[in-house]
Amino acid sequence: MTAPNSPANTRRPLGVAMIGYAFMGKAHSNAWRNVTAYFDVPAFEQKVLVGRDAAGVAEAAAKYGWAESSTDWRAVIERDDIDIVDICAPGWMHAEIAIAALQAGKHVLVEKPLANTLAEAEAMAAAAQAARANGVQSMIGFNYRRVPALALARELIAEGRVGTVRQVRAAYLQDWLVDETAPMSWRLNKETAGSGALGDIASHTIDQVLFLLADQVTEVSGRLHTFVGRRPGASGPASGMEEVTVDDAAWATLSLASGAIASVEVSRVATGQKNSLKLEVYGDKGAILFDLENLNELRFLDATAPVREQGFRRILVNEPEHPYLAAWWPQGHIIGWEHTFTHEIRDFLTAISTSTPPSPSFEDGLEVQRILTAVEESAAAKSSIIHMAGARVVQPTALTAISEGA
Amino acid sequence: MTAPNSPANTRRPLGVAMIGYAFMGKAHSNAWRNVTAYFDVPAFEQKVLVGRDAAGVAEAAAKYGWAESSTDWRAVIERDDIDIVDICAPGWMHAEIAIAALQAGKHVLVEKPLANTLAEAEAMAAAAQAARANGVQSMIGFNYRRVPALALARELIAEGRVGTVRQVRAAYLQDWLVDETAPMSWRLNKETAGSGALGDIASHTIDQVLFLLADQVTEVSGRLHTFVGRRPGASGPASGMEEVTVDDAAWATLSLASGAIASVEVSRVATGQKNSLKLEVYGDKGAILFDLENLNELRFLDATAPVREQGFRRILVNEPEHPYLAAWWPQGHIIGWEHTFTHEIRDFLTAISTSTPPSPSFEDGLEVQRILTAVEESAAAKSSIIHMAGARVVQPTALTAISEGA
Amino acid sequence: MTAPNSPANTRRPLGVAMIGYAFMGKAHSNAWRNVTAYFDVPAFEQKVLVGRDAAGVAEAAAKYGWAESSTDWRAVIERDDIDIVDICAPGWMHAEIAIAALQAGKHVLVEKPLANTLAEAEAMAAAAQAARANGVQSMIGFNYRRVPALALARELIAEGRVGTVRQVRAAYLQDWLVDETAPMSWRLNKETAGSGALGDIASHTIDQVLFLLADQVTEVSGRLHTFVGRRPGASGPASGMEEVTVDDAAWATLSLASGAIASVEVSRVATGQKNSLKLEVYGDKGAILFDLENLNELRFLDATAPVREQGFRRILVNEPEHPYLAAWWPQGHIIGWEHTFTHEIRDFLTAISTSTPPSPSFEDGLEVQRILTAVEESAAAKSSIIHMAGARVVQPTALTAISEGA
Amino acid sequence: MTAPNSPANTRRPLGVAMIGYAFMGKAHSNAWRNVTAYFDVPAFEQKVLVGRDAAGVAEAAAKYGWAESSTDWRAVIERDDIDIVDICAPGWMHAEIAIAALQAGKHVLVEKPLANTLAEAEAMAAAAQAARANGVQSMIGFNYRRVPALALARELIAEGRVGTVRQVRAAYLQDWLVDETAPMSWRLNKETAGSGALGDIASHTIDQVLFLLADQVTEVSGRLHTFVGRRPGASGPASGMEEVTVDDAAWATLSLASGAIASVEVSRVATGQKNSLKLEVYGDKGAILFDLENLNELRFLDATAPVREQGFRRILVNEPEHPYLAAWWPQGHIIGWEHTFTHEIRDFLTAISTSTPPSPSFEDGLEVQRILTAVEESAAAKSSIIHMAGARVVQPTALTAISEGA
Repeated sequence: MTAPNSPANTRRPLGVAMIGYAFMGKAHSNAWRNVTAYFDVPAFEQKVLVGRDAAGVAEAAAKYGWAESSTDWRAVIERDDIDIVDICAPGWMHAEIAIAALQAGKHVLVEKPLANTLAEAEAMAAAAQAARANGVQSMIGFNYRRVPALALARELIAEGRVGTVRQVRAAYLQDWLVDETAPMSWRLNKETAGSGALGDIASHTIDQVLFLLADQVTEVSGRLHTFVGRRPGASGPASGMEEVTVDDAAWATLSLASGAIASVEVSRVATGQKNSLKLEVYGDKGAILFDLENLNELRFLDATAPVREQGFRRILVNEPEHPYLAAWWPQGHIIGWEHTFTHEIRDFLTAISTSTPPSPSFEDGLEVQRILTAVEESAAAKSSIIHMAGARVVQPTALTAISEGA
Repeated sequence: MTAPNSPANTRRPLGVAMIGYAFMGKAHSNAWRNVTAYFDVPAFEQKVLVGRDAAGVAEAAAKYGWAESSTDWRAVIERDDIDIVDICAPGWMHAEIAIAALQAGKHVLVEKPLANTLAEAEAMAAAAQAARANGVQSMIGFNYRRVPALALARELIAEGRVGTVRQVRAAYLQDWLVDETAPMSWRLNKETAGSGALGDIASHTIDQVLFLLADQVTEVSGRLHTFVGRRPGASGPASGMEEVTVDDAAWATLSLASGAIASVEVSRVATGQKNSLKLEVYGDKGAILFDLENLNELRFLDATAPVREQGFRRILVNEPEHPYLAAWWPQGHIIGWEHTFTHEIRDFLTAISTSTPPSPSFEDGLEVQRILTAVEESAAAKSSIIHMAGARVVQPTALTAISEGA
Repeated sequence: MTAPNSPANTRRPLGVAMIGYAFMGKAHSNAWRNVTAYFDVPAFEQKVLVGRDAAGVAEAAAKYGWAESSTDWRAVIERDDIDIVDICAPGWMHAEIAIAALQAGKHVLVEKPLANTLAEAEAMAAAAQAARANGVQSMIGFNYRRVPALALARELIAEGRVGTVRQVRAAYLQDWLVDETAPMSWRLNKETAGSGALGDIASHTIDQVLFLLADQVTEVSGRLHTFVGRRPGASGPASGMEEVTVDDAAWATLSLASGAIASVEVSRVATGQKNSLKLEVYGDKGAILFDLENLNELRFLDATAPVREQGFRRILVNEPEHPYLAAWWPQGHIIGWEHTFTHEIRDFLTAISTSTPPSPSFEDGLEVQRILTAVEESAAAKSSIIHMAGARVVQPTALTAISEGA
Repeated sequence: MTAPNSPANTRRPLGVAMIGYAFMGKAHSNAWRNVTAYFDVPAFEQKVLVGRDAAGVAEAAAKYGWAESSTDWRAVIERDDIDIVDICAPGWMHAEIAIAALQAGKHVLVEKPLANTLAEAEAMAAAAQAARANGVQSMIGFNYRRVPALALARELIAEGRVGTVRQVRAAYLQDWLVDETAPMSWRLNKETAGSGALGDIASHTIDQVLFLLADQVTEVSGRLHTFVGRRPGASGPASGMEEVTVDDAAWATLSLASGAIASVEVSRVATGQKNSLKLEVYGDKGAILFDLENLNELRFLDATAPVREQGFRRILVNEPEHPYLAAWWPQGHIIGWEHTFTHEIRDFLTAISTSTPPSPSFEDGLEVQRILTAVEESAAAKSSIIHMAGARVVQPTALTAISEGA
């Protein structure tokens, strides 16, 4: 049933183009660069990175592992060697690019939110539906569905481990707008951003409610508020104050078709909460708690266990039995642990380039070995204290402040 | 003073060879593959991966981003286009390879522990010292020095923020040997492994004591114990029981030159503790707590603050002000967060290759958009409840079990 | 200015009467019985406990430390030797008793909520105002204002330590109605209870918002829901199903005069949350977090500290500098710790009455002493291991299951 | 078999004498004063409190609920109306008083540690054994055996829920000696205190190891250290520096008869740790964690559960099913919660004695009622926002600083 020109039929590696190279482009590039090292996926090539600034996009392409760069997304999506288009451009560009790419027969991944307006979103969904009939796939990047702990939460809920869900508490709290002197930006302007915390982080939050419960929203009560209504212009205080036209915070209650009720609260002025997506699901047989600031952990309470031993258990989602985890590291070496080595290589390379002895040195390693040997000797002598003769004079290199690595 | 053949003088990209491609090789490869995307480092090329099995090492080279593979480390370290040798081979091979590479004028990074015996470690330190005089650098991979939270701890201690350190409690608890029916392996044999928990994880723990305090150990009392003394042979119970000749757990107290005392306790049978390196530093002006299972957090208590408001503060080490963090993601998006996208790309590619519509779909994105719009409408109508007409019939794809991605 | 008959002028100990001896009566009695041991308060006597059942109230009076009991509250509040009336009767009785007691010139303490209806509450406030002019005092028992950690929170906020408060998140989560087969009761009937979670726990939650911020509510949006609409009659399933006429959960957003917005969410079906009053206060200079399930702790973030060391600090509210704490126990011995002794005395008395040797015995104490002595001996011998000769044969008493004490 | 003069045969209430009224006397008095209100115990009377200072002990007797006071413990233990002697005097007096009381046929409860010397402890155990033959009971006050969470831990271990215990980590960390200018005291002098952290808190720690495991210690390696060796005399710096002759910290490893090994670490200079008795028990089928700073919680991991859902669960030990808890408060109202009322009564009485309107007032209660009513109105109107007309002008009393109550 797949159309003859479907890229899924090709035997050559899939060609990937990515549009946009800011925050999301950097994050998506990381994924394209590494996915093959961990997972068994179809062969592909990071063909081309697209951006508006020729020099900027060329530099980014080099850093992020793309073979070429371009400033013309329209030309790129027409290329025969491109099978996949990954859209990391701002929200107002999503609809035009995505629809054009789908119509060109390219598989499309687009960052969330789908679009800045409902009309654009509807057009995109229609285009996706039409393309799907031709074997052209599309996906929206609600990436938190792929947090292993949340994937596990979804599994547990789907298996009935929390029973019938009644109440959900969902919040996404950030604090990057606490400072009222922080300047105006396109993210605070309704025309460019669509909305504030609502579209940016309530979208993730609401998607999680839908994802975890596999349910539909039937009723909504909402509230929006802007705590800091005026901010200095982007050029600083001297440029005068400008009006913030999007929300700093939003609140809602959602009725779900199943009878559950979810509360949603999001904020960009929740001081001290850096990126805290909190999800609480209460069913009649159990409950689940999650906080993105500890993204490797899920808390689960089984209310069918004997009362005496009930309690929220902290599951460190890091076992081969957990979603996605078999691909990664041994037990307890959480995802992200690997970048201790990235930092190490960074400092090692920097030391080489500056002809500075890096730290820790082999002598540092020897010192540890001497102590381990002393532990063994003491253990063999009924734990009697061993004096370490001739303790090494620590080389200055051993004291190299790690902060220089910052 | 740098020797003419010093690789630091070369203008071409540094050539890197890595020896070993198991757990550590996979982790180091990740670092080499990504460091350039985040940090400004000298240009280099992942030239060659070395292993004993030709087919295995070739496959690993492809997955992990190495241009070539080889089974002959001696030949590789002599190559003119190789400037750096990264040794991830087992401990008993460290000395031979490292000394040869240093003598060939190559910069060397070697995994911890430095060696399986004190004699080998001493020879390696001597070789490193000799090479250093020729501008050839060397480093031992105590990677936890580059955990940003521990680098911050080191900074705070060096700045005097905890005052004079008196007591340190250091522990490294794992549980992968709890099951007494788990089979024998080379890691449990003193001849191949050198020691058990002692060399494997006490080495990290002791290095952290030295690193955090910048101090020297003068006295040691130690104890070793093997809880499961006999295990089934590697070929299973039928092959008979074999003797475990290394420690399952170790305890020590260390006197430091400064007058501080550190306790060290490590275990591979600490049920439920997956990879918990716990560090507690108590000084006369403050204290620091750390647990590797929450590696993005540092707990710090400032005992010079008014008593009424003293308490251990949980610092989410994720700000540009923190060591290494300026290179990564915005506030609260902890290191490791980026792999939600790796999983997303994995599932997207799998969907394409199987011609299965991936989830979440554009329609899912549209549904979220409709709810966001309802929130806005309700907010504009004094929070009055909005009924969502014509709720979309959820496509089967929306229920695709995420666990299929596992 | 105090009226001649003001009880505050009397020299004899104040006479106290308490009405009601269920949950709240038991809790208030505990307070009357113990306050003098910790605080310097005026002399008083626990004169009389009032209830409807003569035998029941007599027994309760004996257990809870009241000199007499009575079934006639009207007679009691007229007694000349009664100066204080503490009303722990159900909410529908508050207005009648409180107004009569105030008119009789008695100081009145009444449990929350003030009344079941707004009309009653208004009448009570009017009576209190009139009585106050005569030096007769009155108080409502929002006891959580006296949680030391919340009193500290109030101090910090009043001192400006969190700056201008913008957003408050307040929730009170319980789970005692999760089981849909739990029977109907007066608390689930609107006629007797007034409301459900709203009056019972949202009242506490809203009082905390007012207390912590010292602010006024100007706008309210609310929602109520009953998840389990029908329950078995109080006599069991055979008696048929009855309609639950109060809310299981409530949600609200509150606008405050200062410009802050508070969300409130309360529930009796939040599985696994036993008695979790959660308060989060976000200001432009700091933030505060509290959870009643850890009532000795306050989390405080000072956003004026250097970013590098910011974080929520866990203040163990247990220092003499903290509200109320100077009266209690040394550092870290949290309130409630003292009841380890209550349990000890209970088991000791039970052992005496049953002529059973209690545990731990003097022999157990001796065994500990022997081990402590061995530690000292080992320490004096360079930590060399000491063998403990003639280890005591443990007496059966040493194994007495503590659970028998339950 | 009970001797004719056994107090257990008497029908009159048991007469109790307590010796000592400092920290422990205050805590034990609290227990005697309250045990009857919660538990069904034999009738008794708080007859007499004994101390050295006549005025001090008389005042303490009045505060703590004792009918009389005395300065002559020898006379008191001979009184016919005394059946029980509770010894809270310092350690060096334990042996003499306890032995005399047992010989006088009185049941004896003595605070820990049993004695300051091993010889005294042996004499006491012998006296206890002799008295037991006559039906005279004795007990040592290791009160932490009666922490409900630890009693639950003992139950779980005894039931085999953690399997065979291998490793125990026990620590007791305090920080009241961090300040090196804190003056000398009898507790820091070996002659009066016997030892330092060892006898004071390692005794509790070791008792817990014995209690939880029901096991015997066969080998000990130990270490003691004094970080602050000289302190100002009790009369201040002017009186000169005095030598501290006890340990600030102690470390030990204990071998148990079962094959388990326990580490013990105690300190009085662990900055920021106020009263943290930490217990970790690792078995081959599960594990248990406890920290006295959260004494209502036990963490339990069941290693026989499916790996996917394993994790330490936080059991809030507050259910009727838990040891001792049936006597206390409803779910989640942890022990200690009741003292919010003690504080409330304290402030109410203080307000009465000073003719100051207490807070919160009935008007405050009315304000909450008005808000609750607005929530109901909004809920009935589709959550539409309700404006609260005529908001009450807050009375100054409403702002009474709670800190005045401190």
